[in-house]
Amino acid sequence: MKTRQDLDAIFHPKTLAVVGAPQERPLGWPGIFGCIRDFGYAGRLYPINPRVTHVEGLKAYPDLVSVPEPIDLVIMSVPAAAVPAALLDCVASGNKNVHIFTAGFNETGEKQDLELHRQILEIARKGGLRVIGPNCMGVYNPKERLTTWVNPSKKDGPVAFVSQSGGHAQDFTGFASGLGIHFSKVVSYGNALTLDSTDFLEYLAGDPDTKIITMYLEGVKDGRKLLDVVRRINKTKPVIILKAGLTEAGTRAVASHTGSMAGGEHIWNAFFKMSGAVRAYSVEDMAHVALAFRHLNTTGGTRVAVIGHGGGIAVAAADACSNAGLTMPPFSAEMQRQLRSFIPSSGNMIRNPVDAIPIFVDTGNIRHMLDLASSQQNIDMFIVSLSLDWIFDVDGGAHITRIAEYLANHARDYLHGKPLVVTWRTYRDDPRVPELGMKIEKLLLNSGIPVYRGIEPATRVLARWARYHRFVRERHSTQASIPEELPCPASPQPAHSGL
Amino acid sequence: MKTRQDLDAIFHPKTLAVVGAPQERPLGWPGIFGCIRDFGYAGRLYPINPRVTHVEGLKAYPDLVSVPEPIDLVIMSVPAAAVPAALLDCVASGNKNVHIFTAGFNETGEKQDLELHRQILEIARKGGLRVIGPNCMGVYNPKERLTTWVNPSKKDGPVAFVSQSGGHAQDFTGFASGLGIHFSKVVSYGNALTLDSTDFLEYLAGDPDTKIITMYLEGVKDGRKLLDVVRRINKTKPVIILKAGLTEAGTRAVASHTGSMAGGEHIWNAFFKMSGAVRAYSVEDMAHVALAFRHLNTTGGTRVAVIGHGGGIAVAAADACSNAGLTMPPFSAEMQRQLRSFIPSSGNMIRNPVDAIPIFVDTGNIRHMLDLASSQQNIDMFIVSLSLDWIFDVDGGAHITRIAEYLANHARDYLHGKPLVVTWRTYRDDPRVPELGMKIEKLLLNSGIPVYRGIEPATRVLARWARYHRFVRERHSTQASIPEELPCPASPQPAHSGL
Repeated sequence: MKTRQDLDAIFHPKTLAVVGAPQERPLGWPGIFGCIRDFGYAGRLYPINPRVTHVEGLKAYPDLVSVPEPIDLVIMSVPAAAVPAALLDCVASGNKNVHIFTAGFNETGEKQDLELHRQILEIARKGGLRVIGPNCMGVYNPKERLTTWVNPSKKDGPVAFVSQSGGHAQDFTGFASGLGIHFSKVVSYGNALTLDSTDFLEYLAGDPDTKIITMYLEGVKDGRKLLDVVRRINKTKPVIILKAGLTEAGTRAVASHTGSMAGGEHIWNAFFKMSGAVRAYSVEDMAHVALAFRHLNTTGGTRVAVIGHGGGIAVAAADACSNAGLTMPPFSAEMQRQLRSFIPSSGNMIRNPVDAIPIFVDTGNIRHMLDLASSQQNIDMFIVSLSLDWIFDVDGGAHITRIAEYLANHARDYLHGKPLVVTWRTYRDDPRVPELGMKIEKLLLNSGIPVYRGIEPATRVLARWARYHRFVRERHSTQASIPEELPCPASPQPAHSGL
Repeated sequence: MKTRQDLDAIFHPKTLAVVGAPQERPLGWPGIFGCIRDFGYAGRLYPINPRVTHVEGLKAYPDLVSVPEPIDLVIMSVPAAAVPAALLDCVASGNKNVHIFTAGFNETGEKQDLELHRQILEIARKGGLRVIGPNCMGVYNPKERLTTWVNPSKKDGPVAFVSQSGGHAQDFTGFASGLGIHFSKVVSYGNALTLDSTDFLEYLAGDPDTKIITMYLEGVKDGRKLLDVVRRINKTKPVIILKAGLTEAGTRAVASHTGSMAGGEHIWNAFFKMSGAVRAYSVEDMAHVALAFRHLNTTGGTRVAVIGHGGGIAVAAADACSNAGLTMPPFSAEMQRQLRSFIPSSGNMIRNPVDAIPIFVDTGNIRHMLDLASSQQNIDMFIVSLSLDWIFDVDGGAHITRIAEYLANHARDYLHGKPLVVTWRTYRDDPRVPELGMKIEKLLLNSGIPVYRGIEPATRVLARWARYHRFVRERHSTQASIPEELPCPASPQPAHSGL
C-alpha cells in the first residue's frame, strides 16, 4: 500500500488540493493555503470550498469529486467534525494521499474526540487512504516550493527531517537553516493515523536527495520495524533521533500532544545501542549533530586537541572532553619543546589543552600550531576555541575577523586531513561582541567548518559523531560478532503502543 | 594572621602600590596600572618603578621602602624572576598584603619555576605576608573602584565571587552583569601561595555587603576547613560552587593552570552532599543559578507548572522538569474545566504542561491563567515559556513587548506569592528576533524576574534552588539527625593537596 510511488507523489505532488481553503486570510496568518501560495508552489493548486467560487484568484471546487484531475496530495484544514466527510470525499474521488492538518482527535483524551478518531481511522482503513496526521504540519519540500508554514528556507540540501511535532518541524528547520543546513524533505506527521515514522524512513532510505536523516519521535507503533529500518539505513545514511517523553511527566505530555505512547527509557536506550542511531537531546542539539555530519568526513578515533586561550576555559574544555567520552592526550615532550619556540611557558598552557594568547596574535602562529599538532600521531581532531571578548579589545573586531577568515580559508591546508571545529563565546554585556560572533560564525559555516557556541556542545557532538563512525566500521568489519537479527526491544502493540 | 582587618584592608585599600607600573601603556592593553586608573580608583595610588620619575602623572618610587606611607595592598606586575626581590621589599617596608599578578611558578611544572615557587613561598612564610596569587587577577571591588582588568561593571551588588581563575573572574562577572547581577567583592587568587579560598570565604561570611557567594575552585588545600566553613555560611548565605578538574584530562589541565591538585569526583560529590553548597557546572550556569537566588524568595516545594505554546516544546519541558528533579503535577479536573472556558481543547494542551496560543493572545488571558494556576495547592512555581518566532509574526515585536511588560509589571499580583521565571527561545534565522529577545530579557530582569534562554536551563536552576531551601529547612528543623561534625571528605595534605 505504501509504495515508493505513493510517497513520491506525496513529497513531489504535481497537484494539490486544500480542503477548507478560506476566501480571506485570517488576521496576521496566511493559513495553509496562503503559505503554499506565498512559497511559490509550482504545481496545480485546487482550493476546495463549497461556499465560494474563487480563492485568491483560483477557481474553487465544492468537493474533491468535482476536481477535473487526480490529486497527488489532499491537505485538510477543516474543523475536526468535518474531517470524516472530507475523508469520504477523498475515498469517493479516488484521491488516497491525505494530510490532515486539523487537531482535536485522540490527543485531547476527550470522549467525543476519541470517537471521532475511531471514525476517521475506520474510513482511512476501509478506503485505503494514506494519511499524514491528523494534528500536524505535513510536508515541506523546498525543491517543490511546498510548505504549510510561514517563510521557511527556499534552499534545499541533503538532510531530511521526520517529525512527530509540527512546532519542531518549523523550529528545527529554521534553526538548522541558520547553520547552513538545508533540507531534502521534511514531514510532520502528528498522531500517525496510518503513516508512521517508519514509512517515511523507508522512503528516505531510497531517496537520492537525502544523505542524512533527522527524526523527532514521541511514540512509534512498530518498534521492531523501526529498529530493523534504522539499522539498515544507518550504515550509509546517519539517522539522528531526538526521542521525547522518556520521563513520567514527558510521557503524559506526549499523550496530550500526539496521542502517542512514549515507551520506557530502558527500551529506548537499548534501541539506540542496537541500531547505532545517533541520539540527540534537543532541537538545538540535533542541529548541532547534523552540522558535524554535514561537513566532517569520517574519523579514526576520539583523541582531540583543544587550542584556545583562557586558563579556566581550558580546564573546562578538558573536563568537557572527558565527560563527553573524548580523550585529550598530552602533547609529547618534543612537541612541547617546539611549541615553546614561539609560546613562552609563563602564563600559557601548552600540554593540551592549549591556553595561549600568543597563538592568536597572528595567523602565522595559528598555522604553526595546527601544523605541529596535526602531525602528531595521537591526535584525531581539533577544536579551536575563541574567546571573543579578549580579542575584541585589540581593535574592535578586525583581528577576530582576520583569524576567522584564516581558519575558514587556509587552516585546513595544515590539518593533514583531520577534522576541525571552531567554538566561540562571549560573556561581556556588549551586543557588538555577539554580533561579531554571529558574523564570523556564518563565515566559517559557509566554508564548511562546524561552529559551536562554547566548547561543551562541541565535545558532545564530536563524541557522538566519532562513535557513529566506530559503530559503522565495527559493524562492517566484524559482522560475525553482531547477529543480523537483533532481539526486538518490544513487540508491536495493537494501536499507539510504545516501542 | 589572616584577620578580618587584614582582608578588610585588601578589599578596601586606602593605599595601593603597583610594583612594575610601566611608563607607557603597551599597545592595546592598559596594563594593571592603567586598569586601576581608568576604573577611577579613589584611594592613593603609588607606581613603583626605579627607572622613571613619574607614571601617568603620578610620582614614581624606586621601591616600597621609599613610599611615605603604609600600603594596604601591593600589586606585583613584574617578571617572575623579579618577584622574590619585590617580596623582600614588602617584608622590609612592612607591607604585608600582596597580590602577585605574575605567572610562571609551580603551574608550569618546569624545574626552574618550581624552584622560584619554593623561594617565594619561603619569603612569604618567613615574612608573614598575606599573598593573593601568584598567577591571578586579584581584587575587583566596584564600590572602591578597584579592578585589574578592562572595563568591568561599575555597579555593585550583593554577590561575591571567589575564583581560582583570572579569566573566569572577568568572564563570570561580565556575564552576570549582563543579567543584572552585580558584585560586592571579587577575588581571583590563582596558585594560592598563602591565601586560599577558605580564607576569603570566612571573610565574606561576615561581610555585610555580601548575601550570595559564588566560587570557582580548581583545588583546595584544606578540605576539612572548606567543608566546615561552607556548612556554616550556607545556612544564611547560599554558596554556589563551580568545581573544575574532576576528570582525568581536567585534573591535568588544573595542574597546568594553577598548579593545583583537583581531587576526585567522589570526594567532591560527598562534599556537595554534606555541605549543602549549590553545585554549578559552567560559568553561564553559575550565573543562572545566582540569578534565581538573587530574585526569588524561598519555596516550599518542587512542583512546577509550565505555561507556554508549542507542543513539542511542552513535551521537552515535561522531560526537562522530570530530569532536573522537579515534578509537574497534572491540573485537577476542575481546573481543566475552568481553563476550557477560554482555551479550546483542540490544538491545545491544558493538563500541565500548558501548550496554548490562546493564552498569549491578550494579557487578560495570561492573568486568568496565572490566577487559576497559582491558586492550585499542588503547584509551587511557574515557568512561562515564550516562543518568540511565533508571536513575532503577529506584528513584528509589539505584541511580545506587551506580554513582557505585563509579566514584568503585573503578573506577580496574581501569583499568590509563588515564584515565576520566564524563558524565551528563537530558532529562526533572523537577527531581529534574538535582538527582541534580549530587549524583553532586560525588561524582565530589571523588574526582578529571572529569565532563561530555553526551558531546560530554567528547570535545572529551579531544581537546585528548591533543593537548597529544602536542605536549609531540614538542617534547621532536624538538627538531631545530622551530626554537627560531619566526617571530613579527606584530610588536608601538606601542600596543594586535593580536597
